[in-house]
Amino acid sequence: MKGILFVLSGPSGTGKGTVCKEVLNREDALTISISATTREKRVGEVDGETYHYVTKDDFEAMIDRGEMLEYATYNGNYYGTPKAGVETLLNEGKDVMLEIEPQGALQVKKLFPEAVLMFLVPPSMSELKNRLVTRGRESAEEIAERINTAKWELEQADKYTVIIENDDFEECVKTVLDYISQKRSDRAAIDRLINEKV
Amino acid sequence: MKGILFVLSGPSGTGKGTVCKEVLNREDALTISISATTREKRVGEVDGETYHYVTKDDFEAMIDRGEMLEYATYNGNYYGTPKAGVETLLNEGKDVMLEIEPQGALQVKKLFPEAVLMFLVPPSMSELKNRLVTRGRESAEEIAERINTAKWELEQADKYTVIIENDDFEECVKTVLDYISQKRSDRAAIDRLINEKV
Repeated sequence: MKGILFVLSGPSGTGKGTVCKEVLNREDALTISISATTREKRVGEVDGETYHYVTKDDFEAMIDRGEMLEYATYNGNYYGTPKAGVETLLNEGKDVMLEIEPQGALQVKKLFPEAVLMFLVPPSMSELKNRLVTRGRESAEEIAERINTAKWELEQADKYTVIIENDDFEECVKTVLDYISQKRSDRAAIDRLINEKV
Repeated sequence: MKGILFVLSGPSGTGKGTVCKEVLNREDALTISISATTREKRVGEVDGETYHYVTKDDFEAMIDRGEMLEYATYNGNYYGTPKAGVETLLNEGKDVMLEIEPQGALQVKKLFPEAVLMFLVPPSMSELKNRLVTRGRESAEEIAERINTAKWELEQADKYTVIIENDDFEECVKTVLDYISQKRSDRAAIDRLINEKV
């Protein structure tokens, strides 16, 4: 029985990183594939845990060699999922979790149409703006740009398997975990039916 | 706001016809698209209401151009769902419901990747067999063939948006209706976000 490929995505500021981290904390049987990026390491981040930090040249060489499952540029930096590993994990029957930007999530869906795409959305755009302002990483201009990007990304929402609102963090994590359980239980039910002798 | 394309499918004998009929009875805001046919118009029938009446050449040309969402032949005539009709309804903001065989459902997904594919499954294969035997339409040999087909169809289950078990009929209808409501409420939430001024 092949593993399930779960993709957690959503506009910047919806908290997909924090939600994903907590989901993985509570769910041992999910394997995460670590993304590669050319952006600078932030305080507290660990190479090979948060991301694989690579140079622009290295990243472009990986693209050229077809080693990226998906990649995107965001604010002038590359972000991508090295293909090596994801397929192997799935073939070993392991469920894989990817936490990626919407552009990348939709690329994954083209290569893995059976991937389960979860789309995190904010309770409102003003709340999304508040979160971006509060985390204080971007200028007012960059925030306005992120809001515009978020609107474009929201227009693609019907390409995802499920929409999950991140209003209350704890509730959101629980919804994601319940949804993963549901998909696993569906797969087990289907497997039982296929193997039933009649 | 575009309508949602719902597709209700499942192996033969899972009861998708009966479930779909009951869902449409209870849910006024779901539209069924007008099929095209090559059979002659009968007295009282209206072109564009009962069916779209087209010639055999036109129908086959539409198949060749990929303009048929799905089609079948019956008594030497073609019957099918033109893509254009479904698109028009969706663009008018109407939610469309199609009840089709799994092979057709997966064809629809290729043309409308954003379609919501609901896959009805039986509680067990022995129960599926019982239902096929009870409705008495097929020979023992045909039933064995349907069971084999069902297993192949079940192997494609991960291509569907959601798996719904049809054990108790009333419960199954309720699950389908709840799922449709959920998808509508998601769409409304996304629409609110896109149109929110910040």
